[in-house]
Amino acid sequence: MDEPEVARRVEAILADFVIRQAESAAARGLPNQAPLVLGDFLAAGGKRIRPLLCVLGWHAAGARGNADAALQVAASLEMFHAFALIHDDIMDRSATRRGRPTVHRALAADHAHGRSAAAADHLGEAGAILVGDFALAWADELLHTARLSPGQLWRVLPLMDDMRGEVLYGQYLDITVTGTRSHEHAVLLRIIRYKTAKYTCERPLHIGAALAGTDEQLLCALSDFALPLGEAFQLRDDLLGVFGNVQETGKPALDDLREGKQTVLVALALAQAPRAQAGQLRQFLGCPTLTEEQAAGAWRIITASAAPRRIEDMIRERYDQALSALGTAPIPIEVRERLRALADGAVWRTT
Amino acid sequence: MDEPEVARRVEAILADFVIRQAESAAARGLPNQAPLVLGDFLAAGGKRIRPLLCVLGWHAAGARGNADAALQVAASLEMFHAFALIHDDIMDRSATRRGRPTVHRALAADHAHGRSAAAADHLGEAGAILVGDFALAWADELLHTARLSPGQLWRVLPLMDDMRGEVLYGQYLDITVTGTRSHEHAVLLRIIRYKTAKYTCERPLHIGAALAGTDEQLLCALSDFALPLGEAFQLRDDLLGVFGNVQETGKPALDDLREGKQTVLVALALAQAPRAQAGQLRQFLGCPTLTEEQAAGAWRIITASAAPRRIEDMIRERYDQALSALGTAPIPIEVRERLRALADGAVWRTT
Repeated sequence: MDEPEVARRVEAILADFVIRQAESAAARGLPNQAPLVLGDFLAAGGKRIRPLLCVLGWHAAGARGNADAALQVAASLEMFHAFALIHDDIMDRSATRRGRPTVHRALAADHAHGRSAAAADHLGEAGAILVGDFALAWADELLHTARLSPGQLWRVLPLMDDMRGEVLYGQYLDITVTGTRSHEHAVLLRIIRYKTAKYTCERPLHIGAALAGTDEQLLCALSDFALPLGEAFQLRDDLLGVFGNVQETGKPALDDLREGKQTVLVALALAQAPRAQAGQLRQFLGCPTLTEEQAAGAWRIITASAAPRRIEDMIRERYDQALSALGTAPIPIEVRERLRALADGAVWRTT
Repeated sequence: MDEPEVARRVEAILADFVIRQAESAAARGLPNQAPLVLGDFLAAGGKRIRPLLCVLGWHAAGARGNADAALQVAASLEMFHAFALIHDDIMDRSATRRGRPTVHRALAADHAHGRSAAAADHLGEAGAILVGDFALAWADELLHTARLSPGQLWRVLPLMDDMRGEVLYGQYLDITVTGTRSHEHAVLLRIIRYKTAKYTCERPLHIGAALAGTDEQLLCALSDFALPLGEAFQLRDDLLGVFGNVQETGKPALDDLREGKQTVLVALALAQAPRAQAGQLRQFLGCPTLTEEQAAGAWRIITASAAPRRIEDMIRERYDQALSALGTAPIPIEVRERLRALADGAVWRTT
């Protein structure tokens, strides 16, 4: 199975699942808005990186067992990710996701009739909390109904438990740091490790591998590849969050700056810029009315510091580490090549 | 095991679990506020009705298998309930629960330093969404680590999936009806059925019974007892929500009226009161600044209608139905007596 085929099959499993949920709700006289909204959200796109890594992990470990079961577990990871994004968007007060209104905004608009704007907004948030809760519960249901063998289920469940705790702790750390002045480098790297490196890269590979069998040595080898890769991926994301737009449109992106998103890039720039410029940058960060001119000022301060160069070095170090681990990992050569191509795409992308 | 013993052992499992989570978080440099806050919430009380029914369901089906495992599954239900309450309190904007600040309020206060009130409130809600998410994920972890046999796990998982969907749909129906003028009797009874009768009574009994073995006839008999009992319990709750306080303090409770909580009681009163009084009652409902005098007015309109009498009749019908089903249920006599005592306490209570 190539990447587009994995994505297609996972999308088909998810679409089928939410349609059945919507039908079953309607048949019981229950509102089917939650499964329908969730179905739209799942269909709106996403890179399907976690399902893909899950399937690659399964192949890395020898692809023993049923392929349909592995694909349904992969779909369960994508359903879990929908939960994480829908709740994150409420916490971040994001208005759009994948070019569409976020779930809480869409539900607020849908229930606006006969309500005050404040009541509709509140109902939108309440509904989105529930749609996220459904996604989390249904990620479980997809897993439970994947026709796994008892051995597969017992191997996968503890890894799922670990993965959930990790991403929730990472997000807890993130929300309590955002908006404060604690630009501590180590804390920001820890957020990256838990929210991205472990959640997005390591655990999907582990879960896929566990479907094929128990092999501690392989799990360690996959971690040695996945953790530095995930960090490099997120550091690239942070760079593109500030600089990506400049390359494409000539204007710096406003969102990350306005939100005051704490990134290693910004923390390094604050630590390394001259005092006056660091003070100015600090004032720009998290200012919701930041103008394009001010954003350009922030961009100049960050660019003039050594931070972007240092981040590029960090990305390179981590990429080299990941590739070196991949080179010695006990996995089939075709899987190694697929993982290498995936790493290149993740780390050296420009958008 | 008597009721207090079940409650004590479930509480010990929960306390031990969250302490281990807090320690494991701290050891990884992760914030342990979520497990600590959740531990406080779990320790603050509650009737432990779901764990108790789970253990009784297990006894009803012959109590085969390990008692410690059954108790840990019971604890998992209580952890799940913490999730449901923490998220419900955000959706209902409740300030207190069990005599303490709700989780979102407590977290807002805890993170107030150096933040605006609005930013602290938002962080409190975001943190409480995550604490609820942790509780849901950890309910699973408790279940996965209960040392169930594969047969037990396969029997319990689909019932858990059903239970979660049912309570979430019930809540979705509830939040979209609250604040509207759709006082449709049938819809309100459906909310009671899903949020209380199935979630609180039927499913805990089913899950406990499934631990002991597969027996469709027994599951049906337990449903025939649990569903009318759960409805009677909630109808009593709605009556006490408006009248309970009057008996104790001489003043009607304001909360349910101010919130505009849609209950079958209120729907019947609106349908049966004379037009002018129904109009007045409609204005009082959901008015956040409702005075005690206005509440007394609402109370008089409801009392003067035939609604309270009709609700008492509905409670009696359902209680009789539950007891009649219990009388013929294929369960040990001691368990039957325990369930009868529990039903009496739930339906004929005055607070």
